[in-house]
Parts: sequence; structure tokens; C-alpha cells
Amino acid sequence: MNKFPVLEIFGPTIQGEGMVVGRKTMFVRTAGCDYSCSWCDSAFTWDGSAKDEIQKLTAPEIINALDQRGGDYFDHVTISGGNPALLKNLNELIDSLHEKGCEVALETQGSKWQAWFLTIDDLTISPKPPSSKMSTNWDVLDRIIAKLEEAGRTTHTSLKVVIFNDEDLEYAKQVHKRYPNLAFYVQVGNEALDESDDQNLALHLLDQYEWLIDRVMHSSDLNHVRVLPQVHALLWGNRRGV
Amino acid sequence: MNKFPVLEIFGPTIQGEGMVVGRKTMFVRTAGCDYSCSWCDSAFTWDGSAKDEIQKLTAPEIINALDQRGGDYFDHVTISGGNPALLKNLNELIDSLHEKGCEVALETQGSKWQAWFLTIDDLTISPKPPSSKMSTNWDVLDRIIAKLEEAGRTTHTSLKVVIFNDEDLEYAKQVHKRYPNLAFYVQVGNEALDESDDQNLALHLLDQYEWLIDRVMHSSDLNHVRVLPQVHALLWGNRRGV
Ligand code: SF4
Ligand code: SF4
Repeated sequence: MNKFPVLEIFGPTIQGEGMVVGRKTMFVRTAGCDYSCSWCDSAFTWDGSAKDEIQKLTAPEIINALDQRGGDYFDHVTISGGNPALLKNLNELIDSLHEKGCEVALETQGSKWQAWFLTIDDLTISPKPPSSKMSTNWDVLDRIIAKLEEAGRTTHTSLKVVIFNDEDLEYAKQVHKRYPNLAFYVQVGNEALDESDDQNLALHLLDQYEWLIDRVMHSSDLNHVRVLPQVHALLWGNRRGV
Repeated sequence: MNKFPVLEIFGPTIQGEGMVVGRKTMFVRTAGCDYSCSWCDSAFTWDGSAKDEIQKLTAPEIINALDQRGGDYFDHVTISGGNPALLKNLNELIDSLHEKGCEVALETQGSKWQAWFLTIDDLTISPKPPSSKMSTNWDVLDRIIAKLEEAGRTTHTSLKVVIFNDEDLEYAKQVHKRYPNLAFYVQVGNEALDESDDQNLALHLLDQYEWLIDRVMHSSDLNHVRVLPQVHALLWGNRRGV
């Protein structure tokens, strides 16, 4: 049986972002990423700083940990990273969660295809804008999205772009134009990862959110979009595991 | 041609609540309500205080006002109130919006059926909990929801309950249990309608939101729900027209 590198299992809490924002969910955070975004808010999953916390767990072990923490209080699990799309055999976990009656959400930047994408209930593909210092491989992304569309997964898939500045917003427009059939979300980035005062952070994020709303409202290229806050950071600041 | 009592037309802004939270939209607010909720945040639509601002407009006149304000910057319109379900001929507006390529969202408390419910893209039914001092007519609500389900409108419909206290939360559980097939949203109520300091209000609403999340997380009757903040009040306080 395959083992997966797991950094955190927590919840129940709410999904703070994207297509099922507000949904009661448990989180499983996997270690490892093929990117190194300049503003990554979970750099501990790939920069070595938390490597002693990584547990190698099988699907039944992960489900056991979820049950211990979540009891009867969940029917939805979010797999995040890092980039969980690096894990070829993750279908073992996803299938087991489905068998147990759980819906499964997963977020990835869209740098790598996995056949099990077709089984995810809420798949968020989050290509990274210029401020991340990463560059998008459009061929790979085109192929991922074509496969999802061909398989009729459109309603189970969404695109999300995190926006820090005007250049990022231009990138978001490009993504939305390229894949007009997918639900499209934009979200303000949190560049205050060192802010330890939760109230200051919340007020700052609301200001940024208002800025982004204003920009989107004045763009006719971005009519069919949803603009969301980062709910977790608004509520719980820069803490982990909430 | 029928005329509709309109109190506000504004936008583009984002939808601040419910099933399409964050969606770029225009708002049309109609006057008149058959309820008088104790904490109504749009009491000016029915308490007479804004009666001089009510305009009687035909569907083309409303669309003209939307175009003047929103230009090319929208493809979604939210009709709110008051209770827009009091307006029997509102299909004239809804159909014209669809013809022009707009999606239409509408919110009502579920006290009255209209055949045009079946044409709304995002219909939010928001029955009012005990703290409102209103009482739900379950027969009427049962019939409304049965008709929507029979017509296959489940994915276009959601239920939303605003929660001020534990009694309201019990009511929410009852609603969710009675209509398990509909997407279910809970939202914290804003009882600080007199707060004029936007930052104080935002921090207070985040506290309340955290309280509600905590309650929902610890209830196995509320697993399949989404808990949302009141985005408009977080951003813009108690102001009208944003
Ligand atoms: S893709 Fe995600 S996890 Fe990886 S570096 Fe970028 S933000 Fe961090
Ligand atoms: S149903 Fe809505 S508009 Fe009518 S009184 Fe209640 S909160 Fe106000």
C-alpha cells in the first residue's frame, strides 16, 4: 500500500477559498511542491523548515486520523499542499473517502496531470500570476483543462487566480479568456505573512479586497467572475492548522 | 406594461451573500415586504421611511437604468427587496434580462410562490428564524420547494438562514433536515445596524462569524452546509447602495 507525505490533518473548519468557500470540511495537507512561489503561504510544505513534521501515511491511516479528529462532524475533505498533484497514487485516498460518503476537494496549480483529477468533486486549478515569479506552462495547462472538459467535469472544476498587483490582474484576464467555460475566481493575495496582529491583518486584507473588487468592477473582460476574500486569514490571521 | 416599485438600482458590485457570493452583479431593489423582521437591514423598503424614493418603473425602464449605470461591466443582475416575490409580473423583467444575456439572482423569504421562480438562475430562499419575530408557514414553504424540485431546479436553488443566536441555529437545523436536497447556507446576522465605524463593525462581524463557525463545526446535523460572512457589511459597513 502506498504512503503519502502528510504535514497536517485538521478540522473540521470551513473551506476559506474558491468554489466551495464556507463549506464545512476537513483538511489534509501534503508535503512537496514543484513550484516555489515568492509569496507562498505554505512554504513549510516544501522549503525543508517542517521536514521533521512530515508523516508517511497510507490512505487508511489518513482516514483514521481524519475520523479521530473529525468524528461525526464532516462529510467533506479538502486535500491541499504543496502540490498534491505530485502524488500519482492519491486515488487510493480519494476513492476511500468517496466510499465513506465524503466529498473531496483538491487544489493544484495545474503544472501536472493526474487521471484521478476526474474523480475530484471540487477541483480548483490555480495557475500562478507573475508576482509569484513562476511561469505558467500553457501547453500543460491546456491539456489538463481539455481533458477535464472532454470528460464532462466542467461543473466540478474551477479556476482561481490570486492577485497581488495590476500585472497579476492582466494575467487573470488572459486565463479567463483562454478557458471561458470554467467558473473563474479571483482572490486577493496576502502579502503580510509576517503580520502577527490578527485585527491589523484583517483590516489590511479587507482594504486589499476592496481594491481588487474595484479593479474587477471596472473591467468588462471580467464580468463572469467571482471575487472572494481569503476567509481563513480574515478570521485566524497567519496561524496554521485552523 | 406593468410597473414595478423600485427603490435602488446600483452596481456593478459583488454579490455579498449566498450561493453566488463574490459574483460580479448589478442590484435592483424592489419596495414592499409582507414581513417585518425585527432586525431587517432593509426596513426602508417597507417601513415608509423611503417612500418618496420609490420609482414605478417598467421592465425596459429598469433595464435602461441598469445599462446607464453598469455599461458593459455586467452580465448578472440580483433582484432583492423587500420581498420581490410579491410582484406577480416580474417575469417581464426576468425574461428581458435573460434575452439580453444576463443571469438573474433573486432572494425571497419563501412566503409566496410565483411561477417565474422556475426561471431564476440563482434563487435563494431565506426563511426567517425565531429572532426575526416572524413565523414560518411551513405548508407554503413545503409547496414552494416541492415545485422547484419537481421542475428540476435544485441546482438553481439554495436555502439560506441568517443566525443571531442558538435558537436560530436550532431553526436552521430544522430547515436543513426538512429540505436535505437543497444547498444550505448559514450566515451570521448583523445586529449592529447602528454602528457607523466600519472597522469596528468589520471586527465585530468577524467575531460573530467565528462564533457561528464554531457552533456549526460542532454539530453533526450541519455537515453539508456552507457558513458565510456578510461580505458587504464587512467591506462597506452599514451603508446603502454599495
Ligand atoms: S504552487 Fe502553491 S504550494 Fe507550491 S509554492 Fe506556489 S503557492 Fe506554494
Ligand atoms: S423578509 Fe427580508 S426585507 Fe422583509 S422584513 Fe424580513 S429581512 Fe426585511
